[in-house]
Amino acid sequence: MKVQGVQQRTIQVASDGVAVEIIDQTRLPFAFERRRLETLEDAAEAIRAMRVRGAPLIGVTAAYGLCLELRRDPSNDALEAATKTLFETRPTAVNLRWALDEMRRALREVAPGERVAAAYARAASLADADVATCRAIGEHGLGLLERAWEERGRRERLDVLTHCNAGWLATVDWGTALAPVYLAHDRGLPVHVWVDETRPRNQGAALTAWELAQHGVPHTVITDNAGGHLMQHGQVSLCLVGTDRTTGTGDVCNKVGTYLKALAARDNGVPFYVAAPSSSIDWSLHDGVTEIPIEERDTREVTHLAGRLENGAIGEVEVVPDGSPVANFGFDVTPARLVTALVTERGDCDASPAGLMRLFPEQRPPA
Amino acid sequence: MKVQGVQQRTIQVASDGVAVEIIDQTRLPFAFERRRLETLEDAAEAIRAMRVRGAPLIGVTAAYGLCLELRRDPSNDALEAATKTLFETRPTAVNLRWALDEMRRALREVAPGERVAAAYARAASLADADVATCRAIGEHGLGLLERAWEERGRRERLDVLTHCNAGWLATVDWGTALAPVYLAHDRGLPVHVWVDETRPRNQGAALTAWELAQHGVPHTVITDNAGGHLMQHGQVSLCLVGTDRTTGTGDVCNKVGTYLKALAARDNGVPFYVAAPSSSIDWSLHDGVTEIPIEERDTREVTHLAGRLENGAIGEVEVVPDGSPVANFGFDVTPARLVTALVTERGDCDASPAGLMRLFPEQRPPA
Repeated sequence: MKVQGVQQRTIQVASDGVAVEIIDQTRLPFAFERRRLETLEDAAEAIRAMRVRGAPLIGVTAAYGLCLELRRDPSNDALEAATKTLFETRPTAVNLRWALDEMRRALREVAPGERVAAAYARAASLADADVATCRAIGEHGLGLLERAWEERGRRERLDVLTHCNAGWLATVDWGTALAPVYLAHDRGLPVHVWVDETRPRNQGAALTAWELAQHGVPHTVITDNAGGHLMQHGQVSLCLVGTDRTTGTGDVCNKVGTYLKALAARDNGVPFYVAAPSSSIDWSLHDGVTEIPIEERDTREVTHLAGRLENGAIGEVEVVPDGSPVANFGFDVTPARLVTALVTERGDCDASPAGLMRLFPEQRPPA
Repeated sequence: MKVQGVQQRTIQVASDGVAVEIIDQTRLPFAFERRRLETLEDAAEAIRAMRVRGAPLIGVTAAYGLCLELRRDPSNDALEAATKTLFETRPTAVNLRWALDEMRRALREVAPGERVAAAYARAASLADADVATCRAIGEHGLGLLERAWEERGRRERLDVLTHCNAGWLATVDWGTALAPVYLAHDRGLPVHVWVDETRPRNQGAALTAWELAQHGVPHTVITDNAGGHLMQHGQVSLCLVGTDRTTGTGDVCNKVGTYLKALAARDNGVPFYVAAPSSSIDWSLHDGVTEIPIEERDTREVTHLAGRLENGAIGEVEVVPDGSPVANFGFDVTPARLVTALVTERGDCDASPAGLMRLFPEQRPPA
């Protein structure tokens, strides 16, 4: 993906071959600052402070965190302790655990003297695998976008509505829901994105809008309340969102508010697509609404809003009166019946056990 | 309604019998300041700067603005000029035009020497009529709340979800959608309100939460994205919202985002009620989605957010990156098929021509 015209990844090894460079996402969209991670603690702090976020990017950052620590001490004890430290930065992140398990499995077989080189190689392959997955989702999703454009006689603008940030910044490159959008734009489709601001953390306004602007993709920021009105008036060709957790039956747990857009899409005959890497699928779940616990997050995310102050500094305003209780539900579940198709790295399919089994025959259907 | 324990109206004549006192709503929720209007220009500025907002309150403020001007000059010319000045403060506000027409009609028949007294009397009667309308909506809506509570065996908390501010602050007293809530609370029903923050202007978080807190009604502020999740999990007993404009067929044009909540209510079997004073009904309209033009408002409402800064002052943060276009649709239309009932000052009815005609037989059904 491009930033200020230069091709970049969200995480990459520095030119010295040792340190790891990330983008400090807490500074976006008003400042673009790369940050150098040189120690385990640098990596752990970057995850904890949400300088990096998005399941795939967190996993890869943790993998590089192990590399940095093994340079200091390549022993088994150091490997175990560093894994524990990194896991505890975001203990509910499924992908973080998965990436750390992968690294540990690969490195325990390697003699301490060769671990550093092996660790950097394994972390790089995790990063590349994420890029390949996102790229494949992009190609499969592009087919859906092209079809929608054909149906409009290849004339009209193709209007995609998205919620939250399932873009480049949540992954190593390309993104999930935004990968098809970037490919479409690069290949000359006149794509335009309606960007839900995505309260309470405003990942849409702050991150999705920023990365689309950097890559030159036409887009418009709207409030989360506006999508229904746009769909009623034929101004949305299709919706395309990400997923944090997908059931084996095709229910989608994503940023809170996704369900409301899926309802509006259904009411107005607008296709509702979900970019779902197989790593998001929990094959053991069959009813997302009853089985997935929804995290209640810090109410400060609702009461305080960060942005650029009148003097140009980054600061906060408080928007809820003293003494008014607040609740902050992080996610909601969109039932499979409202999802037109899931877009995985192996292709798109019905949001159903049969649809998913067709693409992932090695999995067992949910009981 | 009570503020700091004292019974108040949003607009009232000062103890000198001349000046008019309003609440400066631009200072809420972090400062409660009454403001004294002494001239036509004071009143016009209060409407223009949205120190007063809400259709009924704007109308009554304009009526008192005429009173203040007629004290200075009771001539026909002054009456006409002041009417024009006030009308131009918010030219799309239907209720503003209606209140000014009422005042002009009443005052043109009166000799200039008696106009000041007649104007204050007529403005007071407009204010009292608004209070009576809201109170009647409150009583009729209370019946619906009581029924919902009966259905829960009078045990559980009654959870009402509301969007935007259709409360006391939008009217002279009681509010429209919140009138039944205040009555229910005063009469001992265990009512609790989920308050949508209502981006972009946050009237829910800033005004609805504040007025509920002042009156002691239990409530919780949520993001606009959260209501669907709550309804999926049985945490909303009913939705109750206001309306800016209602068609003769029962379509409801209200603050943008209302339609999304109505869809979630329908999907989860939650009743969706709309408090609709007859002054909001445009009997000539029969299809709200195609016939009601939706105002696109200043994009600054989306890009900048006002609140309390860390130093305690009221200020703003910018939340959208430079160079990202923004759209700001003020309202949306909820089709009658999603509305369980309209609550008017004459009772509740189906959101349909037949339902409305039963309560308002003197009107002609839409063509």
